[in-house]
Amino acid sequence: MESTLVSGNDALRTFVLVMDKDDEAFEQISGFARDHDVTGASLTAVGAAKAATLGYFDPEITDYRLTDFDEQMEVLSLVGDIAAKDGSPALHAHLVLGRKDSSAIGGHLKKLVVWPTLEVVLTETPAELRKTVDPETGLALIDLHG
Amino acid sequence: MESTLVSGNDALRTFVLVMDKDDEAFEQISGFARDHDVTGASLTAVGAAKAATLGYFDPEITDYRLTDFDEQMEVLSLVGDIAAKDGSPALHAHLVLGRKDSSAIGGHLKKLVVWPTLEVVLTETPAELRKTVDPETGLALIDLHG
Amino acid sequence: MESTLVSGNDALRTFVLVMDKDDEAFEQISGFARDHDVTGASLTAVGAAKAATLGYFDPEITDYRLTDFDEQMEVLSLVGDIAAKDGSPALHAHLVLGRKDSSAIGGHLKKLVVWPTLEVVLTETPAELRKTVDPETGLALIDLHG
Repeated sequence: MESTLVSGNDALRTFVLVMDKDDEAFEQISGFARDHDVTGASLTAVGAAKAATLGYFDPEITDYRLTDFDEQMEVLSLVGDIAAKDGSPALHAHLVLGRKDSSAIGGHLKKLVVWPTLEVVLTETPAELRKTVDPETGLALIDLHG
Repeated sequence: MESTLVSGNDALRTFVLVMDKDDEAFEQISGFARDHDVTGASLTAVGAAKAATLGYFDPEITDYRLTDFDEQMEVLSLVGDIAAKDGSPALHAHLVLGRKDSSAIGGHLKKLVVWPTLEVVLTETPAELRKTVDPETGLALIDLHG
Repeated sequence: MESTLVSGNDALRTFVLVMDKDDEAFEQISGFARDHDVTGASLTAVGAAKAATLGYFDPEITDYRLTDFDEQMEVLSLVGDIAAKDGSPALHAHLVLGRKDSSAIGGHLKKLVVWPTLEVVLTETPAELRKTVDPETGLALIDLHG
């Protein structure tokens, strides 16, 4: 993955990240946020992938059900945010993928193996966003007054 | 719903809104825009919902057809804008939802019952955007020279 | 198509473009970028269309497979970026479309015939982004260190 700071001041940085073939996007974006101390940001991305693991939060089991897709797909949208959970940046993103027959699938981003590229625009919010665990669901939700 | 101003000057405010369980997103975002006098903005959101009413503009009847979905779904993307119609903020947003089998559905946002959360980033444009009614369709469209 | 500059300084312009009935979006956005010398930007859009040509990059033929859809559809999301390829602005966008039965389809934006409107928010990054051709795929990919 390559990255560049495209908008400069300390208060509101905008980064462009360009993934390489076989990069795993969740890990790469999360690592970038940790390395650059990004604790409040929104992001969008487009590109393509050769594999993905999508999550669906199922209230019946109070957990994510995961489904693997091993095929070439267009990344039609990837929208998400970064907030601080227990002091570290936590990525929360959802994505829509396009299959060979043009049908769309999607879910919570668990894993995305890029091929050949994924172009990410990451914009700091810039206030830090904090997450706390919601007791009812076990999910880390943004807590603006936490 | 909780909200916070994350980017500060008067010319270009950025807000983060965090919906609570059972909040209805269309009403909440619209009310927020009215309360904070937001008359030109773009927004994105991700989260999850337990019910939605999706619109499809059908030229044959010159109106929206509405379909209800009552099931837990991931909000894969929600993209839209806020403009002024007859002097008040008007929200126009489209969304993509992910079902338990990972298939995607979507339409014009009419109603969205959040569960457990929806994270919205709302950025002022900052010039006011105005809508006027298009006589052919009856829709309120942005009129940049109106 | 109408357009307006909504955020003013030279370093980080934000434009709103509003397409008219029967505008072809790829051509209109590309032409706008050329006319206004936009060589690094991200964009989102929502609206509706009466026809689209969607691309799917198929590694087996190292090229896009194209599929035409001739029906009224909601433009649920359109996410992309503009970078410079051989010195000229190149638009790369993916879109998700909603059909009458609320099912979602999508792909790489090749052609989109707007009806009745498409609202585009285009934000400069502001650093110029450059694309170079990837020898393995023949695709023009963003090259941050090119």
